[in-house]
Parts: sequence; C-alpha cells; structure tokens
Amino acid sequence: MENWINSRLSGQIAFIAEIDKLKGVLRQSLIMDGSRRENTAEHSWHIAVFAMLMHEYTTEPRPDLNRVIRMLLLHDIVEVDAGDTFAYDAVGYEDKEEREHAAARRIFGLLPEDQRQEWIGAWREFEAGETAEARFANAVDRLLPLVHNYYTGGASWVRNGIVRSQVIRRIAPVETICPPLWRFAMELLDKAVDKGILLEDGAGKRV
Amino acid sequence: MENWINSRLSGQIAFIAEIDKLKGVLRQSLIMDGSRRENTAEHSWHIAVFAMLMHEYTTEPRPDLNRVIRMLLLHDIVEVDAGDTFAYDAVGYEDKEEREHAAARRIFGLLPEDQRQEWIGAWREFEAGETAEARFANAVDRLLPLVHNYYTGGASWVRNGIVRSQVIRRIAPVETICPPLWRFAMELLDKAVDKGILLEDGAGKRV
Repeated sequence: MENWINSRLSGQIAFIAEIDKLKGVLRQSLIMDGSRRENTAEHSWHIAVFAMLMHEYTTEPRPDLNRVIRMLLLHDIVEVDAGDTFAYDAVGYEDKEEREHAAARRIFGLLPEDQRQEWIGAWREFEAGETAEARFANAVDRLLPLVHNYYTGGASWVRNGIVRSQVIRRIAPVETICPPLWRFAMELLDKAVDKGILLEDGAGKRV
Repeated sequence: MENWINSRLSGQIAFIAEIDKLKGVLRQSLIMDGSRRENTAEHSWHIAVFAMLMHEYTTEPRPDLNRVIRMLLLHDIVEVDAGDTFAYDAVGYEDKEEREHAAARRIFGLLPEDQRQEWIGAWREFEAGETAEARFANAVDRLLPLVHNYYTGGASWVRNGIVRSQVIRRIAPVETICPPLWRFAMELLDKAVDKGILLEDGAGKRV
C-alpha cells in the first residue's frame, strides 16, 4: 500500500494486508459441518477461543493465558508462505523449519523493528515449546483437531490412513500440562475407534 | 456431543463446536484478494491481530490490550444465530439488538455458569461501548473494513451505493481514541474517492 502518514503505520497496514492471505491457506481438517476444509485464519481464531476455554484444566502454576492467546493468534502466520504442513507428513516436516523461518523473516519483516522483534519472539517461543505458555499453546493446537475429526467422521484420519498410536504420539504434550484433557482425549479416541472413524494399530482399513 | 468426563467439559466442547458455525457466516467485506466474501470467524482473528498492531495509537491512558483481544475474539459469536448485520443496513439494525441478545443467551448458555457470566459480560461490554477497551475494540472493528474496501476496489461500498459521509459517521469512534488512525482513515477516504471506488456525497453513481 502507498506510504501513509508515516512509514511505521505503512508497514503495519502492509502486514495486516499480507496476513489476510491466511484466509486462503487450507488445512487438512474440515470445518465441523464437514462441508469444506478449514483455513488457517479461522483456525487461528478458533484455537485462541479454545485456549480460553481449556486454560482451567492446566496444572499449577498455570501459564499466562494472555501470552498464550497472543502466541496462538500469531503462531501460523508463517503459513502465508510456507503453507500448512499436515501433522503426520514426515516428508513435509523435513524442511518445515527452514521454510517457516524464511517466511517469518519476510512476513514479520514488514513490521517496525520493535514490533518485529517482539512478534517473531512470540512465534519462536511457540515453535520451541519450552515455556509453560508455549507448551499449553502447543497442547491445545494438537487437541482441537481431534474434536474436528470426531465431528466430521474422522475426515483427515480416514483420508490419510492415520492409526490411533500416531494420534496419541501427536497429542503427547497434553498429558502433563492438562491431565483432565488427556483423559478426555483418550476417551474420544476409544469412541472414534469404536465408530470406525480411526484405525486401530495393526488393523486393516475399516472404511 | 456425548457426555464426556464431566458436564462442565461437555458444555465447553459443545460450545467450541457450536461457534465453529461462524466459519459459515458471511460478511459484506471481501477478503483482500477479492476472491470471495469474508466469514466472521476469520474476521475475528484478523481484527484481534489488527488491535494488537494499532494499540500504540490509542490516547493515554491506553486500554488494556489483553481485555480488548478477548473481547474481539468473542464479539461476533452471536452471529451464529443472528447473522451479520451490514453496518449500513438501517432495517437490519432495527431488531439487531433483540436478535443478538437471544443468540447470546442460547450460545453462551452452553457454557458452565461462571464462564457464561464472564463471557456474556465481555460481549455486553463490547456492545455497550462505554469502557476504554470497548471503545477501542469498536474503533478497530469499524476501521479495518475500510482497509478491506480499499484493497478490493471498494467492493462493499460500490455494491451498496455507500457515500463518504456514511463511512465517516460509521468510523466516528476512531477520532477521539486513535487520532493518528483517524487522520489515516481520512486520507484513505480521499484516495478512495479519487479512485472512484467510493461515492462523494451528492455525487451520482460513478460506477
């Protein structure tokens, strides 16, 4: 966009226009009525609200929910360039980090220097998954797709031949951070296998 | 969804599934590449990030940004039932409040009592527009569609025959809360009129 009042605001407006592209980045999950694939922008909203709901199930001392929300609003912005890498795509994961770091430099690079440092910092913190906030943010980000799959007949599990143990490994971070949600997830996976929308390990395809 | 571990978590999971429907509620704005209308879920993410970017332009004492972000994430949830009411739709506004209050009772009613009270409170605060947080949240929510319109050839202005003074009245809350953004908006409207994507008051249709 043209130069507005000052270059600081110009950069910020360019950034808000650039990240609009997340509305066109498709994930493997379907929206819950099953009608279409979910995009990363609407996911980013949904996961932030989900974190607000699930925060009460974290172990003490609880992560700072405000920092978690901000982290989740920014955590997938790199997908404007790097696209969404499916959680179970081993090949995609090989160069995921490199692709996403280049994307972070370019996209957050539109921001004024101080804001860029802070926002890239939040994204790196999420990726590193070491702080309590990043661990909780990662946990909910891995848990919500189970609910999507449960509501949509296991859409992305079935299409990709995912088995129960893969899902359990994927959501491992939930166990220590949110024990009640871990029990919920295990119960959900039992029901999903019973319904035939998730493959048991070693089982032939059920669908 | 079935009863999970406890009815508290059941209600919260039912809520996260219910609000998934915002991904299917269409707004008048187009996404910035002009390819389709924006939905309310992705808007809710975009506006929360926009508030994070624009907070530095508020007058002192600045609103609490964390409260603003949470308010914006929840502000349009009533649209699951009530739909999006176009900002310049006088007829739609006649019963907007009634429709939205019924929606709030039903949708937030899925939540456990304590969370319901808190979240309905945030939504009511946004609607009332009296606190510094609600005033800023309303200001950015009115400003961002201008940027969408600017990028998409005035899509929702042109389609609905909107003139400059209507836009100015709509964004009036910006002037006192974020003076630099008001100047930006006035400049943007000048350029929009020059480009022929926004009608000048009293002018015949230019398109």
